[in-house]
Amino acid sequence: MSDQTRFMLSENDVPRFWYNINADSPVPPTPVLHPGTKEPITPEFLSVLFPMDIILQEISTERFIQIPEPVREIYKLYRPTPLIRARRLELALGTPAHIYYKYEGVSPAGSHKLNTAVPQAYYNKMAGTHALTTETGAGQWGSALAMACKFFDIALEVYMVKVSYNQKPYRRFLMETYGAQVFASPSDRTHAGQSILAQDPNSPGSLGVAISEAVEVAATSNGAKKYSLGSVLNHVLLHQSVIGEESLKQMDMAGEYPDVVIGCVGGGSNFSGIAFPFLRENLKNGKRTRLVAVEPTAAPSLTRGIYAFDYGDTAQMAPIVKMHTLGHDFIPSPIHAGGLRYHGMAPTLSALYDAGLISAVAVRQKAVFDAAVQFAHAEGILPAPESAHAIRTAIDEALEAKALGEKRVILFNLSGHGHFDLSAYDAYNTGQLEDYDFPEEAIATIPQRLPKVNMNIPA
Amino acid sequence: MSDQTRFMLSENDVPRFWYNINADSPVPPTPVLHPGTKEPITPEFLSVLFPMDIILQEISTERFIQIPEPVREIYKLYRPTPLIRARRLELALGTPAHIYYKYEGVSPAGSHKLNTAVPQAYYNKMAGTHALTTETGAGQWGSALAMACKFFDIALEVYMVKVSYNQKPYRRFLMETYGAQVFASPSDRTHAGQSILAQDPNSPGSLGVAISEAVEVAATSNGAKKYSLGSVLNHVLLHQSVIGEESLKQMDMAGEYPDVVIGCVGGGSNFSGIAFPFLRENLKNGKRTRLVAVEPTAAPSLTRGIYAFDYGDTAQMAPIVKMHTLGHDFIPSPIHAGGLRYHGMAPTLSALYDAGLISAVAVRQKAVFDAAVQFAHAEGILPAPESAHAIRTAIDEALEAKALGEKRVILFNLSGHGHFDLSAYDAYNTGQLEDYDFPEEAIATIPQRLPKVNMNIPA
Repeated sequence: MSDQTRFMLSENDVPRFWYNINADSPVPPTPVLHPGTKEPITPEFLSVLFPMDIILQEISTERFIQIPEPVREIYKLYRPTPLIRARRLELALGTPAHIYYKYEGVSPAGSHKLNTAVPQAYYNKMAGTHALTTETGAGQWGSALAMACKFFDIALEVYMVKVSYNQKPYRRFLMETYGAQVFASPSDRTHAGQSILAQDPNSPGSLGVAISEAVEVAATSNGAKKYSLGSVLNHVLLHQSVIGEESLKQMDMAGEYPDVVIGCVGGGSNFSGIAFPFLRENLKNGKRTRLVAVEPTAAPSLTRGIYAFDYGDTAQMAPIVKMHTLGHDFIPSPIHAGGLRYHGMAPTLSALYDAGLISAVAVRQKAVFDAAVQFAHAEGILPAPESAHAIRTAIDEALEAKALGEKRVILFNLSGHGHFDLSAYDAYNTGQLEDYDFPEEAIATIPQRLPKVNMNIPA
Repeated sequence: MSDQTRFMLSENDVPRFWYNINADSPVPPTPVLHPGTKEPITPEFLSVLFPMDIILQEISTERFIQIPEPVREIYKLYRPTPLIRARRLELALGTPAHIYYKYEGVSPAGSHKLNTAVPQAYYNKMAGTHALTTETGAGQWGSALAMACKFFDIALEVYMVKVSYNQKPYRRFLMETYGAQVFASPSDRTHAGQSILAQDPNSPGSLGVAISEAVEVAATSNGAKKYSLGSVLNHVLLHQSVIGEESLKQMDMAGEYPDVVIGCVGGGSNFSGIAFPFLRENLKNGKRTRLVAVEPTAAPSLTRGIYAFDYGDTAQMAPIVKMHTLGHDFIPSPIHAGGLRYHGMAPTLSALYDAGLISAVAVRQKAVFDAAVQFAHAEGILPAPESAHAIRTAIDEALEAKALGEKRVILFNLSGHGHFDLSAYDAYNTGQLEDYDFPEEAIATIPQRLPKVNMNIPA
C-alpha cells in the first residue's frame, strides 16, 4: 500500500479506448421506441438529432472503441485527472476505512461532463454540423458543451432549467463567455415550453422539460441544428468510461482495490463512468466490488421509481426507453443539485440495477450539504452539490466501517467542483437550506402516468 | 523538446525547501521603519503582529529554508501543480513562440495564495495563535487563508475591500463556508475604517485601507489575535518560490528554457514566486531570462510610482518600507482585478526592479479581458482577472515573436482561476466593462504625499 496522497498518471496514460459495458453486460438491451408510433426506432429516426458516428456508438456492442486523436489531444488539457486519498477526511472521521476520490473537477469546465462534450462536438464537426442545441440543469453540462463547441467552432443554444438559471447566474455567464446562447427553460421559444408555461407560469422547469425544448428546436430546424445530450444515452456512458479506466490504474498505484465504488446519479453518466470498468472486473475477473449509485430523495428514480417504458422528456418528443422512472411529467423539487433533477435513469444502468448488479441509495439535501462542508473542511475542495451526494454515502460507508471495526476501501467519484453553487452553500451556512422528502404523492401515481406501449416488445 | 502538453511532477517532487532570493540578491535589503517613530523597527515590534518563526523568515538571508512536513503534507493536496504548453493558443495566434503556463488555479482555494496561507497558519498554530486577522482584495487571499485556518483550527476575521465584496459575493460565501468572518472594508469596526468612511461614505476601499483595519484589530487585541498578510513581505515571497522551483523542473521535462517569465503584480508575490528561482539562474548560472512583471494601468506602482519610503497601509499603522509606491493614500479605480489594487510593491521586488534585474509593463483592463477570453476560448480555463494581466503580456510577447519571425519560449504564471469573477466577464460580454487610464493626477502628487523619513537611513 502506498503512502502517497495523490496518484497521478502521465499524459501517455490518457486512455486510448472507451469501454462499452454492453459488450459484457449479462442483461440484453431493451428496444428504443418512437415517441409517436411507439414502435422500435431506426437509426434514420435518430439521425435527425445525432450524427451517424454517435448513433453507431449508441447501438454498438464492441468492447473497446478507439478514442479519436483530436479528442485525446483535448483530453490532455486536463486528463488523466488525479485520484486522491482523503487522508485528512479519514482522520476527521476516525475511521479505519481508506477513502479515495477521483477528482473530475480539474476539467476546465469544472466537471466530468467535458469527457463526452468533446467527442460529441468532434463527431458533429466531422459530420458537418454547424449548430447544436442542448439542455442543462445546474449548468455543468452546458458549460462543458459550450467549451467543446467553441473548440470546434460550432454554435450552441442551451436551454437551462429555470430554477438553476436563477440560482446560478455565474454558470450562464460562463457559457456565454464560451460563446453559447442561454435561455431559461421553460421558455416561450418552443411549443413544449409554451405548453408548460400555460399550465404553470411559475414552473421551476426540469431536465425533462429542457430536453423537450432542445429536442424540438433541433427536430424542427430542417437539418440546420443537431441535438446533444449530456447523460442517459449509451454513447455518453461510453465516453465517461475514461474515469473508471484511469481509476483502475490509479488504485493499482495505491496498492489497493475498492470494496465499494460510489457515484451520484441524475441521468447516470458520471456513476457509470467510474463504475462500469469496475463492473467489468466483477463480471469477468471475479472481483466483488459493490457499486453504489446515490440519488436525491427529491428525484429517487432508482430507489422509488418503476422500471418501465417511458419518454425521455416531458413533452413526449424524445424516444421512449425502458428505464427506472418517476414518470416523464414529474417535476422534482428545486434542490440545488440541478444536475440530478431528472425523472428517469440511463436505460443501461437501469437494466443493470434491475438485474441486481448495481445498488442504490437516496439521500436528503441537508445531509448532503453536511457532508459537502465536512469534506471541504478536511480536504479543501468545495464539491458540487451533485457530487456531494457521493460524498454523503462515502462518509456513511466510512462510519459504518468504523462502527464495525472493519477496514474498507472506498472509492467515489468527485464529479465536479461547487464554485458556481455558492448561493446553495450560503443558504446552508445561514440555516435557510430546504430539505426534501420522497415525493410520495407522485410516486403513487407513476403507473397511471406512463405511456401505454405494445407489451409484445421484447424487454 | 517534448511533444507533450502537460508536464506533471510526482508527489515526491513537492519542494522540500523554499528559496530565499535575499541570499543571492546583489541589492542590499532596505530597513523597515516604525510607522510612529520612523526609526528602524525591531523583531519585538513585529512580534505584536507575527509569530517569531515568521519574523525570522522575514529577515533571513539563508538560501534554502526547509518546508515543515505538516505544510508539505497539505501542499500534496494540490502540488506539484501542472505546467502546460498552450498549444491551442499558439495555434490560434499563429506564432512560432512556445507558450507555457504554470497553473496554480488547481489549488482548492483557487490560486497560488494557498502556498503561503498554509505555512502562515502552521507557524501561527505552533506559536499558540487562536485567531488571525487579514485583508483581502478579490478574495483569493482571504479564501486561501480561510481554508488554511480551518485546517489548523484557527479563527479568522477577513476585511474584504468593499468594491470586491459587492462584485464577488461568492467569494464571501466561500470564506464563510471555510468558517471565516468577512467584513466589507472600510468598516465601522475600526478607527481606520471609520476615518475613511467619514471622508467618503461611498469609498470603494482598497487593499491599503483593508490592511489598516486588519492590522488595527490585531494590534489592539492585547495579544489575542495575530495578523497575516498575503503578499508584499519577504516571507510571503519566500513561500511562493515553490512555483518557480517546480517550473524549473517542468521546463526541463519540456526540454526548453524560458526566454521570458511573466507574472502579474499587485503586492508582487505570485510574480516573485515564479520569477525568483529563474533570477537565481540568471545571477548564478549565466542564464538570461527576461523577468516581466505586469501591473494594471489603474495601479501602476512599478511603471509610474516612485521608489521611496512609504507606509504599507493607508492609515499609517503598518511599517514604513522602501518600495515603488503611488502613495499610501492612493485608492485605485475599481478594476475587477481586486488583487492588484495596491498602492505599493514588495520591497525586495522593488529593489530588484530598481536595479534593472526585473522589468515591468502596465496594461489596461479591456485589453486584459480580451486576452482572458482569447485564452479561455483556446485553452478552456477561465483565468482570474489578475492572472489575465500575465496572459495579456504573454500574448503580446508571442505576437511580437511572430512579427519578428523569432522562436521565443514564454512562461507565465496562471496564478488562479476566474470562477468567482464571472460578473466581470458578464460586464465584458455585454460591453459594459470600464477601461482605466493611468491615474495621472495622483501620480503627479506622489512626492508630496510620502512620509518624511530620516535621510541618513542607509537605503
